[in-house]
Amino acid sequence: MSKVRILNEGIIKELLDIKNVIEVVKQVYTLKNSNQADLFPIITHIFEPGKADMDIKAGHLKGEANVFGLKLVSWFGENIKKGLPDVIGTIMVFDGRTGIPLGILSAEHITCMRTGSAGAIGSKYLARKDSENLLMVGAGHQAFFQIAAGLTVLNNIKKVTVYDPINYKFAVDFCNKVKLRLKNEILLRYKDDKIYSEKLAKKFGITFVATDDIEKSTGQADIIVTATPSRKPLIKREWVKKGTHFTCIGSDMEGKQEIDEN
Amino acid sequence: MSKVRILNEGIIKELLDIKNVIEVVKQVYTLKNSNQADLFPIITHIFEPGKADMDIKAGHLKGEANVFGLKLVSWFGENIKKGLPDVIGTIMVFDGRTGIPLGILSAEHITCMRTGSAGAIGSKYLARKDSENLLMVGAGHQAFFQIAAGLTVLNNIKKVTVYDPINYKFAVDFCNKVKLRLKNEILLRYKDDKIYSEKLAKKFGITFVATDDIEKSTGQADIIVTATPSRKPLIKREWVKKGTHFTCIGSDMEGKQEIDEN
Repeated sequence: MSKVRILNEGIIKELLDIKNVIEVVKQVYTLKNSNQADLFPIITHIFEPGKADMDIKAGHLKGEANVFGLKLVSWFGENIKKGLPDVIGTIMVFDGRTGIPLGILSAEHITCMRTGSAGAIGSKYLARKDSENLLMVGAGHQAFFQIAAGLTVLNNIKKVTVYDPINYKFAVDFCNKVKLRLKNEILLRYKDDKIYSEKLAKKFGITFVATDDIEKSTGQADIIVTATPSRKPLIKREWVKKGTHFTCIGSDMEGKQEIDEN
Repeated sequence: MSKVRILNEGIIKELLDIKNVIEVVKQVYTLKNSNQADLFPIITHIFEPGKADMDIKAGHLKGEANVFGLKLVSWFGENIKKGLPDVIGTIMVFDGRTGIPLGILSAEHITCMRTGSAGAIGSKYLARKDSENLLMVGAGHQAFFQIAAGLTVLNNIKKVTVYDPINYKFAVDFCNKVKLRLKNEILLRYKDDKIYSEKLAKKFGITFVATDDIEKSTGQADIIVTATPSRKPLIKREWVKKGTHFTCIGSDMEGKQEIDEN
């Protein structure tokens, strides 16, 4: 058997930087658009409804890279009580010319970075260029990556408002910690590139505010990113101002819903 | 991340013994029959028709083991020319209680042993108990495992006839080598169990004959095992004697066919 590179969560956190991930995700979308990438059907399995499920996402990236592979991600809600992560993922990558396994990778951080990048790319190309107010709905694990990637690519954001549909305190807590996290997890990576890190530091230096008034915040938002497990609309159509861009990360499965369907 | 056990092809060849694999495969079939095992939909992807494809088979084994996982197997026909194996497989196994990865395994030898065991279990329970003549159609990689597992569980086989639909010489070559392989790859594993290894040695001491007359061999066979990539019938209904048991390993995909559909 060939040599297989195995990358655990720690190594991946060291290796990935958001600027680069955004660029790679953009390239992959471009390849998909020119039929240089195939997505295989998604396998979803529910072990116990509302308690544990998993999915397998697989595909083939042609072009120069020419790799295929899969990601298995499981969610076991009870894990938290056991001191284990609730979301666990593993990626396998194979050579698209020979089928030989190239690598096995822990998928949690990759997934966070990838999903953050996807949201950011959507906002960059689809939101109004002069967007100043970003509303983040959901203050969970993914919120940080949506904000970090979003601020990396957007140039005019002045305020991020955070709303959590379950508990206002989560939003307050998130806002209290976000600047330190942005510094430690994102900014420090670019410390050798003075010009870029100063530019980014300025973008990260904006206002973060928690809110419990989703209606008012929606009315002020130019960009709304939702990352919740909601199964009912959180945002009503009549609250939204004209031209607001939506990135709905949470609605990734049948039955999930975050915004008004009307 | 948790500790993940990684088993390469060499270790798996050392660890697996056919008697045990047959027992485990039987247990899994029993669990499946009592709804203690779920199979997820199979993903199949053809990179290039007749040149390269892959599939992902996944499932959940409940009961005491409580594991879920997947196997990705690819076939790159051109690999042989490059000095690489044409069939390459990888298995990932996860804890069914927490989703934590337990192991990553090379899947080639496991697949051979599993498929051999499946054929043998079928013959053991469905073929006539007094079956003496086994016809092996296809002298490729899987033939050896079908014969080894079959002889392990069946008690009255006196002759194995081997027919290869592509080249008679493959069947001759196979028969010339099979006894030594049975000794080295199967029998030696039981050298510490004198009673069992003598019993097995006797079973392996039967006659192996290559044939180029599939019609005549079919007429004499009590059990017919087919393991070919054929896409057209190799065996006609009228050649078969009454009560013959069939195990068709090769017909594992739409479009593949080994026996008369009438």
